[in-house]
Amino acid sequence: MPSKTACAAIGIDLGGTNLRGAVVESGKLLGEPVYVETPDRPEKIVDALVKLIEDLLVEAQAAGMKRDSICGVGIATAGVVKCDTGEVIGSTGNLPGWAGTKIREVIEDRVGLCVHVENDANAAAYGEARIDELKDLHCIVVVTLGTGIGGGIVIDGKLLHGRGWAAGEIGHMSIALDDSRLCTCGLYNCWEAYGSGRGLLTTAREFIAGQKDNYLQSSLSKEEELTTYMLFQEAKAGDRLACSIVRRWHEHLTIGIVNLTHILNPDCFVITGGLSQACDLELLKRLTVEKALHNIGETVEIRASRLETNAGLIGAAQSVIDEVRVGVPARS
Amino acid sequence: MPSKTACAAIGIDLGGTNLRGAVVESGKLLGEPVYVETPDRPEKIVDALVKLIEDLLVEAQAAGMKRDSICGVGIATAGVVKCDTGEVIGSTGNLPGWAGTKIREVIEDRVGLCVHVENDANAAAYGEARIDELKDLHCIVVVTLGTGIGGGIVIDGKLLHGRGWAAGEIGHMSIALDDSRLCTCGLYNCWEAYGSGRGLLTTAREFIAGQKDNYLQSSLSKEEELTTYMLFQEAKAGDRLACSIVRRWHEHLTIGIVNLTHILNPDCFVITGGLSQACDLELLKRLTVEKALHNIGETVEIRASRLETNAGLIGAAQSVIDEVRVGVPARS
Repeated sequence: MPSKTACAAIGIDLGGTNLRGAVVESGKLLGEPVYVETPDRPEKIVDALVKLIEDLLVEAQAAGMKRDSICGVGIATAGVVKCDTGEVIGSTGNLPGWAGTKIREVIEDRVGLCVHVENDANAAAYGEARIDELKDLHCIVVVTLGTGIGGGIVIDGKLLHGRGWAAGEIGHMSIALDDSRLCTCGLYNCWEAYGSGRGLLTTAREFIAGQKDNYLQSSLSKEEELTTYMLFQEAKAGDRLACSIVRRWHEHLTIGIVNLTHILNPDCFVITGGLSQACDLELLKRLTVEKALHNIGETVEIRASRLETNAGLIGAAQSVIDEVRVGVPARS
Repeated sequence: MPSKTACAAIGIDLGGTNLRGAVVESGKLLGEPVYVETPDRPEKIVDALVKLIEDLLVEAQAAGMKRDSICGVGIATAGVVKCDTGEVIGSTGNLPGWAGTKIREVIEDRVGLCVHVENDANAAAYGEARIDELKDLHCIVVVTLGTGIGGGIVIDGKLLHGRGWAAGEIGHMSIALDDSRLCTCGLYNCWEAYGSGRGLLTTAREFIAGQKDNYLQSSLSKEEELTTYMLFQEAKAGDRLACSIVRRWHEHLTIGIVNLTHILNPDCFVITGGLSQACDLELLKRLTVEKALHNIGETVEIRASRLETNAGLIGAAQSVIDEVRVGVPARS
C-alpha cells in the first residue's frame, strides 16, 4: 500500500474523444499529458485505462519517482458518478454504454492502486479550488463554459455531491418563463440554453433574424455557417451586431452568476472551459454588481481558470491524494 | 460560565411587531413563548431584550431549572447578520436604525451569558434542520413562504453563511427574462416576485385582467380587495379561476425548487412560513419531478415545517447551544 504521505497520483480525464493522463505531484503535471483515443466499447475503455495507467507508472519510475509515492488513480469521466462506489450511474453523452460500469472496482482489481472516480465538471472544480490561492476559501463555484454549461461547488474544501450525486448541475437552472428555448437536456429555459456556446449561437440567430438593413452592414451577413469563434472575432474587430450579441451573451451569463451569488454567496467564481477565454470577466463582474442585491454582488470575486484544460485531470488526481491522506476506508 | 453539557438556552425572535422569547431545552419550548411589543428605537430594543432575558431566567428558575444549565441566548433578527461579531450589517426592513447595532456585545455585557445572533430566516432553517429526523442529513434547504420568500441552507449540520453573510437569499434568484415584475428589493424577475404571497396576488391580478366573461362566473369578481386567504378559500371551494391562479403559483414555486435541486441536489426541502399551509406539497413534488433533470427530481423530498412559527426562536437557541458545546472561542 502507498504511504499516507505520498503526494503524487495518476490523473486521467476520460472524454468522448480521448483519454488523457498524467502523473500529478503537488498539483502539477510531471511531464506532458499522454493522449489515447477513446475506444468505442466499455470493456475496451477499461483496457485502455489500465494500459494508460501502466504506461504512466513506467514513465514515473523512469523519471526517478518511487512506485509507492504514487498513492492512487483519479479518473474524471462524463456522467453522474456515485463516488463512494466509483460507478457511473447517469447518462454519459458521448460514451455509449458506459453507465453502469463499476470503474473503481474493475480498475482497482487490475492495477492494485486506490481509484477515485469523479464527474468531470466536479473534478475540474476540485482541481481549481485546491490551488494554493483558493484552497482555504469557504465556498468556490467553478463554472465550465463550453458547448454546454457545467459546474462544481466546493465548500470547506469538499465537493458538494448531493443526495443523488448530481449537485452542481448549474447549467440546468431555469432563467426564463417563456419556453422559447429547448435545452439539449429536454427541459426548457435552462441557463445553458442561453449562456453556453450553443446558447450564444441561438441568441445570434435571433439577433440576425431581427435585423433588416443593419444586418447588411455586419460582417456576419457574409458568413454562411455561424460559429462562436466567428462571433468573438467580429466583435473584437468592432462589428456592431456581433458586439450586441456578445454583450447579450454576457447578460445571460450574469443571470446564472447572480442566482448562484444570491443562493450561496460564494467567496469566488472560477470561469473555465472552452469559451472562458472569450468571456470578459470585468464586464461579468460589473453586470453582477448591477443585477445582485446591494452589497452582495460587490463582495464576489470572478476569476479565470488557472489549470485550464488540465483541471479535470489534476482535480481527479488530487481527489485520490486527499482521500488516501485522510484515510477514507478502502472499498469493502 | 455555563457548563459544556448545558442543553438549554433562551431563544428570541426579534420581529418588527414583537419580541418573542422562550427557554428552549432539547429542541422544545419550556412553556409558552413570552411576547413583548418591539420598541421603536435601537437602544430601547436592547433594553427590552435584556428585560425579556431576565424575565425568562426567573421563569426558568421558578420551573426548577438551574441557572447554569442555561448556556446562552440566541437571537433571530431581520437583516444581514455578521454572526462572528453578532452585528447587524444589512438592511432590516421594519426595524429602522437597527443596522450597525453590536447586539452580541451589548447583550453579553449586560446579561453575562453567551449570545449568538442569527438572521431570522437562517435561524428558522437551523431550527428545522436540527430536528431528530433531519439532523444527520447532508444538505437541507428551508424555504420560508410569506409576504416574501426567505431561505436557509444547512450543509453537514452547519448553516451556509457565505462570504458576505448573505447566503440563502433564494427569493432573489431570477426566474424570468422579461422584466415584467419588479421585486420589493429593487430587482426585476426575482422568484419572490412570483412565488411569495405578494407574487401570488400579482399573478391573480394578471389572470383577472385577462378574463372576460369567465371572470363574472368567478367568486373573485365579487370581491373588492384581493387577499391570498380569499384566493385559497375560493380555490378550495372549486372556483375555476381561483384554481388556475393557485395552480400557476405552484408552477412558479416549482421553478425555484427545481433550480435549487439542480444546484445543490439537497436531501430535503422544508417548506415553512405563513403560506406554507396553503402549499400543496404533493403537487409541488409532482411538478418538481416533471421539471427537473431525469432521476434528480425523483430523489428530492419536500416536507412541511415541524416547528412552524417557533422555528426562528428554537433555531436561535439551538445555535448558541451548539456553539457552546463545540467550544467556539469567546469574543475577544
